[in-house]
Amino acid sequence: MARPKVGVILAGCGNRDGAEIHEAVFTMLALDKAGCDMVLMAPDVPQAAVVNHRTGETEPGSRNVLAEANRIGRGKVVDLKAVDASGLTALVLPGGFGAAKNLCDFAVKGPDCSVNPDVERLLRAVHAAGKPIGAICIAPALLARVFGSEHPVLTIGTDAGTAAALEKCGAKHEACRIGGVVVDEKLRFVSTPAYMLAPSLKELASDAEKLVAEVLRLAKKPAAA
Amino acid sequence: MARPKVGVILAGCGNRDGAEIHEAVFTMLALDKAGCDMVLMAPDVPQAAVVNHRTGETEPGSRNVLAEANRIGRGKVVDLKAVDASGLTALVLPGGFGAAKNLCDFAVKGPDCSVNPDVERLLRAVHAAGKPIGAICIAPALLARVFGSEHPVLTIGTDAGTAAALEKCGAKHEACRIGGVVVDEKLRFVSTPAYMLAPSLKELASDAEKLVAEVLRLAKKPAAA
Repeated sequence: MARPKVGVILAGCGNRDGAEIHEAVFTMLALDKAGCDMVLMAPDVPQAAVVNHRTGETEPGSRNVLAEANRIGRGKVVDLKAVDASGLTALVLPGGFGAAKNLCDFAVKGPDCSVNPDVERLLRAVHAAGKPIGAICIAPALLARVFGSEHPVLTIGTDAGTAAALEKCGAKHEACRIGGVVVDEKLRFVSTPAYMLAPSLKELASDAEKLVAEVLRLAKKPAAA
Repeated sequence: MARPKVGVILAGCGNRDGAEIHEAVFTMLALDKAGCDMVLMAPDVPQAAVVNHRTGETEPGSRNVLAEANRIGRGKVVDLKAVDASGLTALVLPGGFGAAKNLCDFAVKGPDCSVNPDVERLLRAVHAAGKPIGAICIAPALLARVFGSEHPVLTIGTDAGTAAALEKCGAKHEACRIGGVVVDEKLRFVSTPAYMLAPSLKELASDAEKLVAEVLRLAKKPAAA
């Protein structure tokens, strides 16, 4: 049997303005352990902001999401625009503020956010092909925004304000604690709160494994009659 | 029994100009799994260079090692200058070019390199207190340079040129493959090649666990009579 080929969308490098590094690396580790090939990808766009991760303050200057994501991917992260859904078994989105600032502007506009058109195109194509999508931490906001009309069941943990914003998009929010994943069997979405709560690193690695296991299970599940 | 408190020196964020992210995160995961507290630290100095990780080319501009390391440490990385060896059980240095460009200039000057004085001070204090030091990937070059007169047994994998540079510093190089660690029982140094070879992510995570296990074993070993 061919190895599953799972796309991973990286939104930069660093939890305050890019992809959350631990979530991204543990997703990649979980995919490697599960015998998957990976297609690491990021949009070739400027970051919405550059944040000094020591002080938490916004800094002048500009960084490119694809170039920064390649710090996590060691030069193997490709331009998301060039990725075709047909080559993928599934898609996973780690969190970090980049998912809500660079892939869409949910961090600023909440339920009225816009989604990067290439990201939206790929999400829609993967979903239309019946392939599963995993979303970690704040990344389920993207699924809520793009697929709200289908009323996906998603989690961002227990934060009431963020949960309400997802519901305003049309999603049904399900509260979830550390160690849990929420699965929408019909729409084939899997979400887990990760750093939306305050897990230890070993819990985070374990939750990434659970999410990947569910994503791969859904990828094998026959389409409903 | 008190939890071990292990220092981790981060040389920035990204394999080409900072800390190798996977090695750093898997070291932190291994320490968490082993029940350790961590003191994440980095020197508050400018990076030797900024490298675009998509193209591999040096870019204009300046980044601060401590600020960038905080991307990996989510804002919890402290200034190395303020760290006292007496509070640590052991020290671990992940690799990446930052270890050979920002903590010392081995990448440019080889065996004649200079070591950042605060890094050297901490390495010497930890070692003088009989506490173990783990070094991953290219980081053993630092131990070779600082402790060459004690002829430490170290590995950087199988690269003949780099091994020769370590031996010129006074070290005894021992070739090592993926899955192996080299232990200098007398000096309490542990090294593993990691990305000096070409491991998979699961091998890398496993090697970090092996290194951490050896470091913690040495930390409990009584001083020789």
